[in-house]
Amino acid sequence: MQKTDEVKVMRDPIHGYIHVDEQVIWDCINAKEFQRLRRIHQLGGDFQVYHTAEHTRFSHSLGVYEIVRRMVGEIPHLKESLNEYEKVTAMLAGLLHDIGHGPFSHAFEGISALKHEEYTVKIILENSEIHHILEAVDPNLPKDVASIITYQHPKECMNQLVSGQLDADRMDYLLRDAYFTGTSYGNFDLERILRTIRMVDGRIVVKESGIHSVEDYIMARYHMYWQVYLHPVARSYEALLTVLFKRLKDLYRIDTSICEAVPMFAPFLSGEAASIEALYELDEAAALYGLSCLIKWKDDIAKDLSYRILNRKLFEYKTIRNSEDDKDIISEVEKLGYNPEYYVFHDAVSQTPYSPYARNENGHNIWVLEKDGSVVELSKASDIVKALTNADLKEEKKVYYPVEHLVL
Amino acid sequence: MQKTDEVKVMRDPIHGYIHVDEQVIWDCINAKEFQRLRRIHQLGGDFQVYHTAEHTRFSHSLGVYEIVRRMVGEIPHLKESLNEYEKVTAMLAGLLHDIGHGPFSHAFEGISALKHEEYTVKIILENSEIHHILEAVDPNLPKDVASIITYQHPKECMNQLVSGQLDADRMDYLLRDAYFTGTSYGNFDLERILRTIRMVDGRIVVKESGIHSVEDYIMARYHMYWQVYLHPVARSYEALLTVLFKRLKDLYRIDTSICEAVPMFAPFLSGEAASIEALYELDEAAALYGLSCLIKWKDDIAKDLSYRILNRKLFEYKTIRNSEDDKDIISEVEKLGYNPEYYVFHDAVSQTPYSPYARNENGHNIWVLEKDGSVVELSKASDIVKALTNADLKEEKKVYYPVEHLVL
Amino acid sequence: MQKTDEVKVMRDPIHGYIHVDEQVIWDCINAKEFQRLRRIHQLGGDFQVYHTAEHTRFSHSLGVYEIVRRMVGEIPHLKESLNEYEKVTAMLAGLLHDIGHGPFSHAFEGISALKHEEYTVKIILENSEIHHILEAVDPNLPKDVASIITYQHPKECMNQLVSGQLDADRMDYLLRDAYFTGTSYGNFDLERILRTIRMVDGRIVVKESGIHSVEDYIMARYHMYWQVYLHPVARSYEALLTVLFKRLKDLYRIDTSICEAVPMFAPFLSGEAASIEALYELDEAAALYGLSCLIKWKDDIAKDLSYRILNRKLFEYKTIRNSEDDKDIISEVEKLGYNPEYYVFHDAVSQTPYSPYARNENGHNIWVLEKDGSVVELSKASDIVKALTNADLKEEKKVYYPVEHLVL
Amino acid sequence: MQKTDEVKVMRDPIHGYIHVDEQVIWDCINAKEFQRLRRIHQLGGDFQVYHTAEHTRFSHSLGVYEIVRRMVGEIPHLKESLNEYEKVTAMLAGLLHDIGHGPFSHAFEGISALKHEEYTVKIILENSEIHHILEAVDPNLPKDVASIITYQHPKECMNQLVSGQLDADRMDYLLRDAYFTGTSYGNFDLERILRTIRMVDGRIVVKESGIHSVEDYIMARYHMYWQVYLHPVARSYEALLTVLFKRLKDLYRIDTSICEAVPMFAPFLSGEAASIEALYELDEAAALYGLSCLIKWKDDIAKDLSYRILNRKLFEYKTIRNSEDDKDIISEVEKLGYNPEYYVFHDAVSQTPYSPYARNENGHNIWVLEKDGSVVELSKASDIVKALTNADLKEEKKVYYPVEHLVL
Repeated sequence: MQKTDEVKVMRDPIHGYIHVDEQVIWDCINAKEFQRLRRIHQLGGDFQVYHTAEHTRFSHSLGVYEIVRRMVGEIPHLKESLNEYEKVTAMLAGLLHDIGHGPFSHAFEGISALKHEEYTVKIILENSEIHHILEAVDPNLPKDVASIITYQHPKECMNQLVSGQLDADRMDYLLRDAYFTGTSYGNFDLERILRTIRMVDGRIVVKESGIHSVEDYIMARYHMYWQVYLHPVARSYEALLTVLFKRLKDLYRIDTSICEAVPMFAPFLSGEAASIEALYELDEAAALYGLSCLIKWKDDIAKDLSYRILNRKLFEYKTIRNSEDDKDIISEVEKLGYNPEYYVFHDAVSQTPYSPYARNENGHNIWVLEKDGSVVELSKASDIVKALTNADLKEEKKVYYPVEHLVL
Repeated sequence: MQKTDEVKVMRDPIHGYIHVDEQVIWDCINAKEFQRLRRIHQLGGDFQVYHTAEHTRFSHSLGVYEIVRRMVGEIPHLKESLNEYEKVTAMLAGLLHDIGHGPFSHAFEGISALKHEEYTVKIILENSEIHHILEAVDPNLPKDVASIITYQHPKECMNQLVSGQLDADRMDYLLRDAYFTGTSYGNFDLERILRTIRMVDGRIVVKESGIHSVEDYIMARYHMYWQVYLHPVARSYEALLTVLFKRLKDLYRIDTSICEAVPMFAPFLSGEAASIEALYELDEAAALYGLSCLIKWKDDIAKDLSYRILNRKLFEYKTIRNSEDDKDIISEVEKLGYNPEYYVFHDAVSQTPYSPYARNENGHNIWVLEKDGSVVELSKASDIVKALTNADLKEEKKVYYPVEHLVL
Repeated sequence: MQKTDEVKVMRDPIHGYIHVDEQVIWDCINAKEFQRLRRIHQLGGDFQVYHTAEHTRFSHSLGVYEIVRRMVGEIPHLKESLNEYEKVTAMLAGLLHDIGHGPFSHAFEGISALKHEEYTVKIILENSEIHHILEAVDPNLPKDVASIITYQHPKECMNQLVSGQLDADRMDYLLRDAYFTGTSYGNFDLERILRTIRMVDGRIVVKESGIHSVEDYIMARYHMYWQVYLHPVARSYEALLTVLFKRLKDLYRIDTSICEAVPMFAPFLSGEAASIEALYELDEAAALYGLSCLIKWKDDIAKDLSYRILNRKLFEYKTIRNSEDDKDIISEVEKLGYNPEYYVFHDAVSQTPYSPYARNENGHNIWVLEKDGSVVELSKASDIVKALTNADLKEEKKVYYPVEHLVL
Repeated sequence: MQKTDEVKVMRDPIHGYIHVDEQVIWDCINAKEFQRLRRIHQLGGDFQVYHTAEHTRFSHSLGVYEIVRRMVGEIPHLKESLNEYEKVTAMLAGLLHDIGHGPFSHAFEGISALKHEEYTVKIILENSEIHHILEAVDPNLPKDVASIITYQHPKECMNQLVSGQLDADRMDYLLRDAYFTGTSYGNFDLERILRTIRMVDGRIVVKESGIHSVEDYIMARYHMYWQVYLHPVARSYEALLTVLFKRLKDLYRIDTSICEAVPMFAPFLSGEAASIEALYELDEAAALYGLSCLIKWKDDIAKDLSYRILNRKLFEYKTIRNSEDDKDIISEVEKLGYNPEYYVFHDAVSQTPYSPYARNENGHNIWVLEKDGSVVELSKASDIVKALTNADLKEEKKVYYPVEHLVL
């Protein structure tokens, strides 16, 4: 693999510096699909709660790359067992794992026929600037990078680095989102975790002496979910986006002039898979400009919802504990002159900080290396994690709806 | 003044929390002109150097408000000498001082007939949501707020709070920009400065015991200017914006179809002052979408420059120490097939960390209250500041130009 | 209560500043019994693991005072319900709660007939500089301060401030010990907890919106216990102190010349309660000097143990999981030529992060104020805390012993 | 050189971790002379101003070692030009450079015939545990380590690492003292300085791109001197120590029974050089215990001064601007019943943040590597440093004296 002339470094508040000395990494960073990530926020609607959560998937992707780079260079046994090609492949998978994201993250997937993971793989494998950079290095590189992202690389540890339970992706975003929201919930001791990770029998494990750091990391995840990612005000913003996109798709079926009003959304409204070029063009700048066009357009619902999104006239919310709790909401919304199909939104969220065996035995557990050399699943080694795993964690149901009629 | 039902707080990494308990402040924050600041980055092109510098004028404006709020509530003599109306007026001036910014800050002023300060005043005084909120509280409130922003309020201390040499604006942005770039240069001891500020004879002064904190703040300014605000890579991005805007104005004179291609820029191309509605609509989302439209448009220069801006194909730069240093650049640029009128950009920057008497005696000096009760200008009280003030600080001249021809 | 001429402030890394404006607080800080706390480390043997854990009970005591000061000045309902005298009493209790500590914290209590809490009360009530300062303000002040420290103040909330489950003492030491060890385990969001505390029916409660901060605080306690307070290397240091003190008491019974060799320890060797003057004189400087005297004294065991303590020749340790695990240790220690009575030390530690009803209903639970106005015990309101409370948390047994014979 | 079995790491708030993988380093850390540094505070009397400044020379010495370790392992050209033996020698010099310190740093040198640097060299070269550890590795190692500490190593860069103008000693103590005082003055960007250091022609230089970090470091030094190291309250504490030591030496000449009262001070009172064993035994625990003995002894002056030191009854101070300013002080002190010879103390302090050529050309300048490859002295390359170097920085004169007569 070709090295850069000198080590490139980029100042980063989470990692001190991001270090790049592989030419292919540098070229991918400068590719237009990667630069586009500067125009996709990391945290959807969370800036509506934490006003400084304005960071993008660009810096997060660099951070994931940096953690993978340290892992493949520092973890005993792992660093010796991977060759240069495999190390760079893992770093590229870390760097590119979010390249297929559309605007506003999860809400956008409501109109898109493909999920962001599918777009990520398509961008890597199809006719993109990223693809050509990878292919020029080695014809197998695109599919090898993609195989890590789909958790199908034949070397289990390669998959675990990027998307296990103790992976570079989660470790970067917890620290980064904590920093940019200004909360302390997401903090844990990354240095200590990296120092206590080992590879045993081709699997990433953490030494028993690092178990308290891992417990801290599990709790960080738990708190960040409730305090940041699932915050009802952020969900309210995403609810507005979801019902707006639903409205646009409904309009498309009866009046395709919507495609001229907001051409950036057009390729996504038919229900068929849009091209990677269409995704490239729909960054958040385009999407936000689209909203400002809708405010001036003829459909009252799209106008009202777009105005609410741009100007933070969010829906209110109410927690639903029994079936009576939302019974009057539809009629109240109708009284305000709104159509409940778009103006009443139900949401249910739940999360467990850590669930062993959730998907498959190897990739989705955290493994602990005990002093006697045996390897056990985390909830067997940690009383705290066992308690959390067995806990009966409640689901929260909420309904979102407007409480005032806007005059536009 | 009407209070909010309860104190509203917003988590902020710089100040811990932003506290709001005045209804008019809360209403202004929720006005559409203020919410638009979420779509204007604080630091123009600096995210090209420091990839996490993605924060916006929204959070900075809240921060300035918070510092003014603390000043009028905590500084001895000041807090007693201002009435409630004056305190809220000062807080509003802090909150709204940047409301007139266009996209990409300074580069944009190259095409705009009005400066951002002029738009700020117009938004406060004319037909805007902000104006109506202020006017409803007191018919004089809009002009009183504006008078602070233009440094013309009859009470000198009111002007100093927001735009003196030791003002809430600079104190917030140094700390905030340091945090979001991940550098340590902008740090200084805000708590200690706030604790040692006093009001003497209607003027903001700092006690002698706070002089080292002020020296530290002056040095923070110096370092942030060279390391962040005037960084040549950020200037290269702004150079591209400047020559693109120049191209758009030149095109407008010969072919007004440019107005259909990028309607968001149209009101600013004629050279006449655009309305505050036109400014409202030209946020950075609109401007970035405009660039993506220009990439597909017919003019090769606008296409090339827009592509460079969106995809970080920046101009290189060279420091000019004598007149020989740039003599071959024009011909080299021409050899690449580019028009030097748009592809060679000269820039000269300089800064002094602190210049007493730079504008007028009262507002633009920092005053020190000595132990014997006398008040002297800072460079008389601090050996370090005196040395800096007398230093022969050099101007840096650079030329920016492309080194490759892009094939689009 | 008499105010100081101006607010005294002391820079503090945890709280920014410690603020003092009550003369009696200032006088107590300057009393010789309080200044002595500068010579008592906060964390016993932890500096043997975390070399920067060199902070003292002096700064911790100021920190507890500062949190109490903020609580009685900021918490809604509480601040209105306490009069000036009660507020100052609570602040004094926070300031003075650790005044009776001997050297090396817990190990010392092995030779002392009185616990540190008993000495604290005696210093406040008997013939000390502190006592005279308090008494001069109000003859009831000494006993009122003492009643909070013994959790017997008639106003329940006064007791809770200083020694409940969510008290100023724990909140300061978790943050402070995390800072000075350089670990991140003890961090939690103090500001948010302070903002969500209320008083309801004379009891300190935390609003439901602060529940995640409290969960974070509970986990901080859990992690600090295992990673810092109960760290086996720190316990090994304390084991050495414990067996040395046992040796000194045993020697005293057969040869009182030990009293001339180490006069500072003499008053504590008989088994009777020593005076507060004797405690005053036995700070850690005296105790460490005593160890250096014992190194030159005639008893081989005292000499060896003192040498080990001063020069970090700690005992090794072994975890005991079943009764076989320590069976050979006594004979191995004897083979090294050591007396197992002093050279084999068994230790068992366990901890639960939070145990409702552990002592009594009111003081030792954390109470949550739900949105409907009801108050419930924390483990009823938090799934996580409920899981931790029900968890079967293991006790750890270890044996400590030397592995080399020192030649002195 | 023998490596340790595995890398030993110690958590450190300044450097994250201290890493040790050389056996000789590990053995020196565990030697009794090095462990003694846990009983010598880093900052003399500064804990009287900044109550958390309770850290010791033990952690500072580890920090200096860690920076040297990084320098010899990371700096381009330097790392290739030193062999293993030289690298370890440099690390040892960093680790051991403060091993000869007595209690209370500078004040103690008033009674000691030797300076701490001289004791450091004696401990390394004579009959100490440290010496034997070094000698066992290589008979030349003691003198090679000592040669760096005396700035006489034949390789100039080796001297610069530990005691140049941009050395590991200063860089650690500025950051560490800032952290433990809780001030922000000492902060600068260590990572960036380490990244921009190079070796050119056997000399340590800093690249032009690192010049702003170095300016920041110079200012950090300036502010730490005035705000911490030369703070008048800390000086007042040191003044008390100085006049007490003067009293002890005067007493020794007339009555050697002082040697029985405070045997730990005895070897230092005659004016002859005390042995390294005597220095070993006089740690701060012994010295503080000595003060408590003096409080009970017969000499009223020693009693009073010792009481003042232990219980923070400091001298007041007055700035002297002209010869009239202190004229009445002697008579006022006499009126209080005190002997002015011990109770009036004059002090003059001044400092320049950076003085080129102060001692010799190579070692005591900071050198800048310009982009064209030339090397210039810092004040030639930095306008700010040039201004500071030329500044007329004032000397501050103060007189310290008691304002109350203590009744003991």
